[in-house]
This record gives sequence, structure tokens and C-alpha cells, in this order.
Amino acid sequence: MLKEVFRNVRQRAPLIHNITNYVTVNDVANLLLASGSSPIMADELMEVEEITSLCAGLHLNIGTLNQRTVESMLLAGKRANELDRPVLLDPVGAGASRLRTQTALQLRREIKLAAIRGNISEIKTLADGSGTTQGVDADVADAITENNLEAAVGFVREFSKITDAVIVMTGAIDLVAEGDRVFLIRNGDPMMPKITGSGCMLSALTTAYLAANPGNPGWAATTAAVMIGLAGERAAQKVKAANGGNATFRNALIDEIFNLDERTLEKGAKIEIR
Amino acid sequence: MLKEVFRNVRQRAPLIHNITNYVTVNDVANLLLASGSSPIMADELMEVEEITSLCAGLHLNIGTLNQRTVESMLLAGKRANELDRPVLLDPVGAGASRLRTQTALQLRREIKLAAIRGNISEIKTLADGSGTTQGVDADVADAITENNLEAAVGFVREFSKITDAVIVMTGAIDLVAEGDRVFLIRNGDPMMPKITGSGCMLSALTTAYLAANPGNPGWAATTAAVMIGLAGERAAQKVKAANGGNATFRNALIDEIFNLDERTLEKGAKIEIR
Amino acid sequence: MLKEVFRNVRQRAPLIHNITNYVTVNDVANLLLASGSSPIMADELMEVEEITSLCAGLHLNIGTLNQRTVESMLLAGKRANELDRPVLLDPVGAGASRLRTQTALQLRREIKLAAIRGNISEIKTLADGSGTTQGVDADVADAITENNLEAAVGFVREFSKITDAVIVMTGAIDLVAEGDRVFLIRNGDPMMPKITGSGCMLSALTTAYLAANPGNPGWAATTAAVMIGLAGERAAQKVKAANGGNATFRNALIDEIFNLDERTLEKGAKIEIR
Repeated sequence: MLKEVFRNVRQRAPLIHNITNYVTVNDVANLLLASGSSPIMADELMEVEEITSLCAGLHLNIGTLNQRTVESMLLAGKRANELDRPVLLDPVGAGASRLRTQTALQLRREIKLAAIRGNISEIKTLADGSGTTQGVDADVADAITENNLEAAVGFVREFSKITDAVIVMTGAIDLVAEGDRVFLIRNGDPMMPKITGSGCMLSALTTAYLAANPGNPGWAATTAAVMIGLAGERAAQKVKAANGGNATFRNALIDEIFNLDERTLEKGAKIEIR
Repeated sequence: MLKEVFRNVRQRAPLIHNITNYVTVNDVANLLLASGSSPIMADELMEVEEITSLCAGLHLNIGTLNQRTVESMLLAGKRANELDRPVLLDPVGAGASRLRTQTALQLRREIKLAAIRGNISEIKTLADGSGTTQGVDADVADAITENNLEAAVGFVREFSKITDAVIVMTGAIDLVAEGDRVFLIRNGDPMMPKITGSGCMLSALTTAYLAANPGNPGWAATTAAVMIGLAGERAAQKVKAANGGNATFRNALIDEIFNLDERTLEKGAKIEIR
Repeated sequence: MLKEVFRNVRQRAPLIHNITNYVTVNDVANLLLASGSSPIMADELMEVEEITSLCAGLHLNIGTLNQRTVESMLLAGKRANELDRPVLLDPVGAGASRLRTQTALQLRREIKLAAIRGNISEIKTLADGSGTTQGVDADVADAITENNLEAAVGFVREFSKITDAVIVMTGAIDLVAEGDRVFLIRNGDPMMPKITGSGCMLSALTTAYLAANPGNPGWAATTAAVMIGLAGERAAQKVKAANGGNATFRNALIDEIFNLDERTLEKGAKIEIR
């Protein structure tokens, strides 16, 4: 399945509309290009609907949101919904300010999201704010590890069912929930949080995978998460060999996505389905 | 001629005002520094005229335009005109939204442009929108190749004469039209569209070359295009040698501009004049 | 002292709020991560106070200021003052436009600054604008060298006393004034001004060092300046060895901060105290 999903992106080369933060936007664009898809960045109210209409998918990232861009995200999201194109929300920093929490909740409420990608605190904030009191919060600590895995799996499963969206919750172990089915991905490297943009790049990549793999969102998101994790593992080896640091890691991560082939992907994937 | 034009930039170190998109702005700044010129980025209405006044040239790029920055571009452009400093327009995405098309046309109408740099669809959009019905559109496909070259050459020649601006239309072959004279540049590498910013960097570099070479805009723009193309060729070799990807290519491209010397430039240039 | 100050950042991992320009923001974020601290970027009026409240320090950089973000800087700065968290101002381009000069002066007037970091013209603009007529302006040329060092030292000492802030004035020699005490730092490399962001990265790093070393701002700022300078020296060697350019230098600079250890820092530091 990984191979087929991977091939679809390379062949269909989906154009992705990103309304995203200005911190990691360049990495997001180069990562999408590395993956065989194409980026467009446009956040002006007057044009976002037209840009969304040209695109196969929409990536909304609130990393440096402002009042102007929140309006643009709402408009673009609604247009994508009308055209039945997948919308992914990355609720960067939800929980860190009322504006971020409220914006993430509003985007969830007013737009039909195909997927939500965040770390555990962001996803929990979205879930709590919406009144889903699963009682898992106390059990799910700030990082997903083997110890609290069961609780985390239950939580994302429930949240995926409530939202009818694929939930991608990333950490030491990444979880992808598509309703009852939960994928556990054990790819990745401790270097990943040492750069800015690991999460943003995954969100953009996931959007491209959703767009090129309609009807198969669970595997699409899982493949994207495996790819970033695997690229991270391989990039970390390069960093070690070169006595590099996090700048080298950032470049190597994008390079690895660029050079990734089906065989390496399938061989390196560490997926468990529950 | 290449050598002289090249030397002028290194010696005069022109300061360039960029009102440009937030996707590739860091690469644009580092590329200008690599070339021996200096960047200033400033897009606030209240200061753009003063900043333009300090600078030798103005680079307007509508890649992530918004209502606020469009106003700034108009003001800065008019000030540059008053001071007789070259203004280059990069109409990123013209044709993709009405806002982009209208903004590009408005900038062309209200500002005397020294040069316009875009890919074929962007340049065609600008030409069509202005009522120039050259009839070449049907002949000029989305990429410039040896097959449609004749039509493309005729098109840019005509458009240069109508606009009284140097037209830089980039693709597999780059065309630089300065009125009747058209330069064909066959430098470059297929890796160039695999990164974001190849075009933006060329636009900024061309502005610096125009600023440091008054009275010689055709050769200035041609030299800049040769430089980026040649740097791309050399960067692609580095990528291959290092098993790298597009992130490595981006860094190598800027490095190559940094290290370029007159001899390499002259030896590597593939220019034909028609 | 260097070791202790350095260790505090690695151990306390301060979270730094950056309201900064979109040109170098990605480098700033990766540099902070490389240093062991963490970045948050947020510039929307509606959330900056909350974000500042979460953070150990605030970095204000006017590199691409606009009317919206100036308001945000003022609000965030006042909140940081209430909470007694250090605020650093980087008056990028002060003197280049009235808006920048006035904004820098307003930020200085309305916010209690722990530190100001700029090049000589920026710092002089701030000092002149505030009515400090030290008479040193004529003596202090645009670059700090051994020849005008005495005058420059006197100038920063005086300005530090007037502002009750640590003054970091960078150039071929960096000066850090903490009232009467002035640190001279002779680390660095001529490659540093060949990239965009050397200054912005130092400003962010200094904020992190101030935040993790309360009560010791002079040594905190000095350690940060030594680190960037030393990383620059080591990165320049890598560039030479690899026949690289300024893009390689940028990456190597961040990598060197990532890999820096106490021993290398202490051994490489070139500090004189006057």
C-alpha cells in the first residue's frame, strides 16, 4: 500500500495551497517540491478562493496567524469544502493563547477537515475545547511513549470518530487515526525537534498525500508520517557522519525526501496497525 | 561585455530595495549578498519611499502580495521613477488570480518598469491583459523549447518594444529582449524548478545588475540570467557528487554565485543574439 | 564565568518570544534551537501579551516592521516589563527611515530594555535621537577598529549608563557595555556580513542568554557574542575546506552553535575587559 500511495503523489504532482506561518514557509515549499508535489503560498483574502480552486488540497497552519490571515483561512477552507478538496489543519500552538485555541476551534467548526496534524498538547486542546471530555487527558502525558501508548491510541481513535477526520498526533511515536483504525509509526529521530519546521513540513506533505490519494486518507497520512520519520533517521546519520548540527539536519531531511524511493520507503517503514 | 558588467556589480555593490514574498525572501537576501550587492527588505507604506531613495534599484515581487503591500509597491515604484532608479517587476502567479493579474497590470501601468522577469505564462498574462494581441499565444506553449523558439523570440521582442522594458522570460531556454535585440541563454539545469526561489533570486540579481550597469540593461539582464543558469549547472554537479537533493542544490546555487569569477562566467556562458 | 553562563542556557532551555523580521526568522528559530533554547514567533496584537507571559525573554527586531507589528511590540514589551522578563531591542535599520528611527526611540522610551543590540550606525541613531550628545559621533566611524576603539568604548559605556541597559555594538570588534564595564570581543570572521541574519541571530541568542542568566547581563551578552563570533570563525574554516560560499557559511554557523561545548568556548574566547 505504501508504494501505491507514494507513487500517486509522484505521478499526480498535486498542487497544494498553503496558508502557513512565515517561519518555516520556505522549508515547507522545498519539502513539497522534494516530494514531487507543488506549493502555492497565498494568504490575501481577495485571492485565496481562486487559489484554492486551482489546487488539489489546502494546508492551514496557524503558526504565525493574524486577524487578516484567519479570515483568509476560513474563506479558503469553505471553498475547498465546496470543491471537495481535502483540508488539513495544523493548530500550531493551540493552547498557548486564546487566539490560537479559538481560531483552531473555529476552523474545526466552520470547515470540514480531512485531517488534523499536531503534537499531543495541540490535539488535546482541540479535543478539550470542543467538549469531548474523554477523560484521557490525565493519562496522556506530553509525550507519547510506550507507557502511555494505550491511552493515546484510545484518545486519537475517539477524536477521529468525533471529528470524522484523520488525526495525526506526532511525538516519539506518531499516531494516525482513521476512525477505529489507528496506525502507530515508530520512525523518526530525536534530531527532529531540534529544527523548526518538522511538524509544518509533515502537515504540508500529508496534505499532498491526501490530495493524491482520495478515498485512502489513513494510508495517505501514514505514508507521509513514515516518510518524514524515515528521512529524519537517514538525515541524522548524515549529520553524524559530517559532524554537523541542526542546519545540516534540516537540509538533509529535505534532501532525503527528494531522493526517497519506494524500496527504501517500504523497507524502512515501522508501522503497526491497531 | 560579460566581464565588465559583472565587475560593475562587484565594484559598485548596489543596494537593492526588495518588496518581495515571504517564501523565498531569505534566499533572495543571501543571493544578493553572494553577488556582491546588498539587500534591504521593507514593505511598510510609511517608509518605502525613504528606503527606495537610499537604494540603487527596486525589485517588486508579487509572490505573496496583499492589499497593504500592493500600495507599498506602487509608492516605492513611483519614487524610484522620480529618482530614475531601475524598477524590476516579477509578476509571480499573474494569471493565477484576478488580484495578481490586476496588480501586475496596475504596476506596469503606473510605474515605468526597467524590466519584467517571469515565466512564460506570467509574461503572457501581462501581455494579453494589456491588449497586445500578438497572436503568438497559441504558438507559444508553456515551455520554451527549440521547437517554439521562433515564436517566443518574436513575442518577447514585440512585448519589449511595447513596454519599453527589458523582458526576461525564463524556461528551459531563457530569453532576454531589449527592444529588437533578443538574447537566448542556454544555461541552466532541470534542478532549478525543483527548488522554490530560482525565479525570485534571478529577479533580485537582475535588479542589482541593472542598477550597477546603467545604459546597458540588455547585457545586464543577460549576465544575471547566465550567472544563475551557470550556477545552477555547477550546483547540480555538486548535488550529484554528494548524493544530495534540492536543499543541497539551493545552498550550492547561492554558493556558486558567491564564488563565481569572471573567467568561469565567460567560459561557461551560452549566449546567442538574434 | 563563560562556562557557567553557557551551562545555564543549556540547562534552563529558556523559551524566547521573537517579534522579528520575516527575512531571517527561520535562521533565528534554528539558531535558538541550536543553542538549547526554544523559539516562539508571534506578532498578532491579540495574542502577544499571552505569548510573552509564557516566555523567559522577549526579542524585538524591527527588520521588517509595519504599523501592525509595532503595536504588538509595544504591548509585548510592556507585558514583559510587568513580569520582569528581559527585553532586547534590535533596531535594524534605525536611521534608514524616520519610521525605523521613531519606532526604535519609542520602544526605548516606553519599554524598559535589558539590552540593545545593533551595529554602530543603529546604536548611534538611537543615542543621538535621544538627545545624548556625547560628541563621540564624529570620532566613531562606521566600523569599530583598533584606531577608533577608545572613542567607541567611551560611547557605549556612556550610552549604557544613560539607558541602564546592556549595549551590544557589533562590528569587526564587538563591544558589550554594562554600565562602566565594557567587554571587547575579538571573535568573528569577515564572512559574517556576507550572510543575512548574523546580527538577528546574535540578538535572539543574547535574549536567551539574558533570560537564563538573571543578574548577570554583561557576561550573558558577552558570552552570546563570543559564541556567534567563534562559531563564525569555525564556520569560515569549514567553508574554506569545502570551497563553499555564504550559504554553506550560514548552515555551518548554526551547526557550530549546535555543537559548541564549554571547553571550545572557553579556549576560543577573545575577551578583554575595560
